[in-house]
Amino acid sequence: MNYRFAERVKSLNPSAIREILKYAADPEVVSLSAGNPAPEAFPTNDIAAIASRILTERPVDALQYGTTEGYEPLRARLASYMKEKHNIGRGFDNILITSGAQQTMELAAKVLCNHGDAVVCEAPSFIGSLNSFRSLGVSLIGVPMQSDGIDLAELESALKSHSNIKFIYTIPNFQNPSGITMSMDKRRKLYALAKRYNVVIVEDNPYGDLRFDGTDVPAVKSLDEDGLVIYAGSFSKVLAPGLRVGFAIAPADLLQKMIVCKQVEDVHTAMLPQIICDEFMKTCDYENHLNNLRSIYSKKARLMLSLIEQHLVPHGVTYDNIQGGLFVWCRLPKTIDMPSFCKRAVIEQKVAVVPGNAFLVDQDLPCQNFRLNFSTPSDDAMHKGIERLGKLLKTMDY
Amino acid sequence: MNYRFAERVKSLNPSAIREILKYAADPEVVSLSAGNPAPEAFPTNDIAAIASRILTERPVDALQYGTTEGYEPLRARLASYMKEKHNIGRGFDNILITSGAQQTMELAAKVLCNHGDAVVCEAPSFIGSLNSFRSLGVSLIGVPMQSDGIDLAELESALKSHSNIKFIYTIPNFQNPSGITMSMDKRRKLYALAKRYNVVIVEDNPYGDLRFDGTDVPAVKSLDEDGLVIYAGSFSKVLAPGLRVGFAIAPADLLQKMIVCKQVEDVHTAMLPQIICDEFMKTCDYENHLNNLRSIYSKKARLMLSLIEQHLVPHGVTYDNIQGGLFVWCRLPKTIDMPSFCKRAVIEQKVAVVPGNAFLVDQDLPCQNFRLNFSTPSDDAMHKGIERLGKLLKTMDY
Repeated sequence: MNYRFAERVKSLNPSAIREILKYAADPEVVSLSAGNPAPEAFPTNDIAAIASRILTERPVDALQYGTTEGYEPLRARLASYMKEKHNIGRGFDNILITSGAQQTMELAAKVLCNHGDAVVCEAPSFIGSLNSFRSLGVSLIGVPMQSDGIDLAELESALKSHSNIKFIYTIPNFQNPSGITMSMDKRRKLYALAKRYNVVIVEDNPYGDLRFDGTDVPAVKSLDEDGLVIYAGSFSKVLAPGLRVGFAIAPADLLQKMIVCKQVEDVHTAMLPQIICDEFMKTCDYENHLNNLRSIYSKKARLMLSLIEQHLVPHGVTYDNIQGGLFVWCRLPKTIDMPSFCKRAVIEQKVAVVPGNAFLVDQDLPCQNFRLNFSTPSDDAMHKGIERLGKLLKTMDY
Repeated sequence: MNYRFAERVKSLNPSAIREILKYAADPEVVSLSAGNPAPEAFPTNDIAAIASRILTERPVDALQYGTTEGYEPLRARLASYMKEKHNIGRGFDNILITSGAQQTMELAAKVLCNHGDAVVCEAPSFIGSLNSFRSLGVSLIGVPMQSDGIDLAELESALKSHSNIKFIYTIPNFQNPSGITMSMDKRRKLYALAKRYNVVIVEDNPYGDLRFDGTDVPAVKSLDEDGLVIYAGSFSKVLAPGLRVGFAIAPADLLQKMIVCKQVEDVHTAMLPQIICDEFMKTCDYENHLNNLRSIYSKKARLMLSLIEQHLVPHGVTYDNIQGGLFVWCRLPKTIDMPSFCKRAVIEQKVAVVPGNAFLVDQDLPCQNFRLNFSTPSDDAMHKGIERLGKLLKTMDY
């Protein structure tokens, strides 16, 4: 049969990251391409005990249909936690449990953007979100990143020249892939610009709790007195991504439309994972758990940076320093062709990294970057992987 | 802030069913409005044992990211089960694990329908699916149901007069809400029509395993030699809806686009629920479990029908006989106003039923039907609920 596809999906292709993950599934390949939490970061014993308690003491809660808004105790707990700890949430806000933060991006675009409307995103930015917007026929306007966050002059010029921009998509902390954290000053100015041009901000904060250096910067959502910001939180990086539990905090009028759209996408987020998240926050020492994660990732990041210094920097690779998150954003010297480096890395050296252009709005633009992940590989794999990349660079040196 | 919503969601409102479910949450209200499995139908001990085994023996499988396509052993098991038991799946087909069957409907519409394209659905039909199509700006063409399924003459006339129909949505077994099962003859003719007019069929089969009377009718998908049919299966009614695990079997070319769209909606379905479904099929006696469900629902259906005979039929209510599923579709006599009956039922008598117009494409059309569910209420609640409806009808009789 000759399928007549919708316009919105004609140009959609599987994300380059997930395609590379398929190579990475080869046990011989050292994967520095994923964004998976370290397996040792999962509180497996606690989760096993919690799941067992739920399924023996009140199985029907976990097995029966729930409401689209989410498991009520988890909604209440997150609302007060986010208010107390991050000053997020005002009287006009409401909270929705989502099937991972990815769903918040898709729902935001679905309720705000007509086919042909535009979204401003940081360039580079998280490919999953960009594809989510693309899947709804949204056009993307990439605004370059600076060392303290999005370029505000370029942002304002985009807002001035396009009347169909519906929201600005930002990852303010340890941005994926650049690792950059937006300064407080820029967060205030970003908020003011959004207000002036009547556009929503979608603030995606999966890595905010994974700071191992420097001082926390308040969320853009903590400034929101006007109902401008949709905040996307997630348990994927701080508890377990396989649970697929995230949450959106947004003005109730806006969230109501997202709830209706979620209802017709997956009815509600799976109950057992929601109750596990709630019980984990309630009965385990959540702050201690976060400290433990920070200590795991801090060690891994330091090892990765020292290996980069040792094996890649001598061949002209540069990188941005990081204070948290899961990634290091590296740049090849001009003499080396980035796409062939990434391809040869996985084929010849069996090391998977993500080519930087995957994160651009226009993937055909020249790009010298590649992204390294330090959360997933073991220390041994990091050693092997970076050494092999160094070896490859040696053969590509002039 | 003045939110500029997308056209597709401007007219979307929460489903009438879920609004009534809110009343039904009042513990005083007898709910005959849900579509929840009977709590005693959950194999809670088996699920608790399986979850405990997974989380102690291989927790990382359940907690780490998975692939968008789904948990590989479950995909393989379902593919061979559906082929052997139902002759579903050809060489050109592939399988995707979804976050409930609802996601299959949304993904089908997303990949096939532009804003303004049309979908043919049975009238009445499942409100969740209709709203899913509406949420993507799809226009709905309702084709009336007959006692053996959709009216084929009306269907062909719709296919002839609209060139923008992308698929036909059907629930062939124990349709929600009408309870009707499409005859084999109609299934063959439906397939032939879809082929002639080059439209896809989306076959939604959540209740197929819940037949307690009569003989199984093969799925439309079992006829599919041309790659016309997207089959939507689900564990919601046969295992547990809170797990949110369903699956789509569809031609690989078509499914590939659905996979890309799912990737940007929720990355993948939660792992622990997927592995629970797989282990349940693998280690428990699945056919025996299905027999047990059929016996539970058969008893509940018989009780419901006898109560209807006793308390509602004397006041002029008629209903269609059923051979499976979870619902009875009742009709009020012409002298009684259906919307006020449903409203007075929940407010005065504290019994929630679903007004029939909720299942129509045009909810403003006159409708004398209401839907009763017999899977969720206890026997005691069914007695109370139907008696109270009888009492209400008495006050509304001329």
